[in-house]
Amino acid sequence: MAKAREGDPRSVGRLISLVEDESPLLPDLMRALAPYAGHARIVGLTGSPGVGKSTSTNALIGELRRRDQRVAVLAVDPSSPFSGGALLGDRIRMGDHVLDPGVFIRSMAARGHLGGLAWTTPQALRVLDAAGFDVVLVETVGVGQSEVEVAGHADSTIVLLAPGMGDGIQAAKAGILEIGDLYVVNKSDRDGADKVRRDLRSMLGLAERRDGAWRPPVLKTTASTATGVADVVDALEEHAAWLRESGELERRRVRRARDEVETLALTALRRRWGSVGSGDRLDELAAAVVAGETDPYTAADALVAGS
Amino acid sequence: MAKAREGDPRSVGRLISLVEDESPLLPDLMRALAPYAGHARIVGLTGSPGVGKSTSTNALIGELRRRDQRVAVLAVDPSSPFSGGALLGDRIRMGDHVLDPGVFIRSMAARGHLGGLAWTTPQALRVLDAAGFDVVLVETVGVGQSEVEVAGHADSTIVLLAPGMGDGIQAAKAGILEIGDLYVVNKSDRDGADKVRRDLRSMLGLAERRDGAWRPPVLKTTASTATGVADVVDALEEHAAWLRESGELERRRVRRARDEVETLALTALRRRWGSVGSGDRLDELAAAVVAGETDPYTAADALVAGS
Repeated sequence: MAKAREGDPRSVGRLISLVEDESPLLPDLMRALAPYAGHARIVGLTGSPGVGKSTSTNALIGELRRRDQRVAVLAVDPSSPFSGGALLGDRIRMGDHVLDPGVFIRSMAARGHLGGLAWTTPQALRVLDAAGFDVVLVETVGVGQSEVEVAGHADSTIVLLAPGMGDGIQAAKAGILEIGDLYVVNKSDRDGADKVRRDLRSMLGLAERRDGAWRPPVLKTTASTATGVADVVDALEEHAAWLRESGELERRRVRRARDEVETLALTALRRRWGSVGSGDRLDELAAAVVAGETDPYTAADALVAGS
Repeated sequence: MAKAREGDPRSVGRLISLVEDESPLLPDLMRALAPYAGHARIVGLTGSPGVGKSTSTNALIGELRRRDQRVAVLAVDPSSPFSGGALLGDRIRMGDHVLDPGVFIRSMAARGHLGGLAWTTPQALRVLDAAGFDVVLVETVGVGQSEVEVAGHADSTIVLLAPGMGDGIQAAKAGILEIGDLYVVNKSDRDGADKVRRDLRSMLGLAERRDGAWRPPVLKTTASTATGVADVVDALEEHAAWLRESGELERRRVRRARDEVETLALTALRRRWGSVGSGDRLDELAAAVVAGETDPYTAADALVAGS
């Protein structure tokens, strides 16, 4: 664990495997890491397939490294039944940074025995945070609800778009207008980039915001040539400063810790209810409900009282 | 409640509104209903938009009434933010049965404060069951995951398909091949109905089934003229007999009661954790986690111990 705290990639990788495997060692590990967490900035990266997420990640890493930041990337795959040993894929994704000891990239399956993404992501982020990375980029592989979910784990969320994908409407549909702290129109050398930017700005302009609230900027990049990427990192810095000064950073972190603690507590209870003593308490109660001997509310009370 | 037990539509409707509104009276209501539940056969009806769900429901009601069965229909709309007072819609849906006292039709929103469909559906079914209906048809309005979820609440699930919708592939994708107890190709007067039936049969044939397992039949109907609908009700009877004899009915009902009791217990706990005593216990613990004073597992243990 000392090695992991220095950022040794093999040690860090091993700890993330413990999270992925839902290891019984996790409570001890999390206890040991608690004093070291809270330093890293967690940046979520989300967007539909085809907008250039991997290329953007690669370009962001480059810019952050230029500013002497240590960077970890966690690619969460909520649908994969396979463990995160997608090492070859990870190495390809590392692109320019394969030999840089200041960069750690890891994909992680959320197999979901204990609640999937909501259960594994915060613990993996805690490992990377305690390992001393300055910035942790979280992205989801795949589409749908999980894209929005990732934003819930981040301090700052970047929503990536690209021209020619009907993105304005997609964005509105996916609820993505509520989750972005920064919007980036990638592939901005293509036709239509300015229109996407304009549409997005006018949609964002419709949202009411309180005084002192953060107004999400809409930037343009061409990630393949790193054009505009320094501006994105500047905007991230500005957002980080706003988060600290407004008290929003603390609020977001407490809210996340709240969700995490609740998820762990509910998981512990569900496990316990599944097999209490010699029998299965929940099955006994369910059988009594089916027989009409009790009702579901009374049974639920009994379950809670016995836990 | 006595009137509801006789099936008086206004009284039954009022009880379902209590469920929909997450009324604090529900525990008492469910306690009172417990001895009267367990009689009705719950039949799920699922299928993509356009396959003729409403027309099929109408035809099924007609055939069940011919066999002297009292029928309730619960149309669950997981996406609607509105209460189930969609009375006009319900009356239109009732079609031929608007004046028949042996038929009750109700749509219900699952607004989801307390967990949406999973929370409201079983309680609404319990009301209809205790009200003495012989058959309760549950269908979802809308598409997606909830279609599969409805099957989890039913004793028998009918999956509806229609020609010309690429249904074979749709079915395989939506996981619908695992949930059907009966498959019905509706609009069978159209071109391609036999192909849909053949494709479906061959896909179902690929599934391994244990000895004594139910083999889902694939039937054809033209619901608009009630053609083939008597065969569907016959097949439902056969499935009901198989459920009883194989012990599967009891297993399905216990599994459902289990989910219901667990959902209620978790909801009660989450409410309690949100505001214990004078402060908010969960917020306090979350703040300690963020400050690095404790870890999420220790906090979760404290939460469970204090509940």
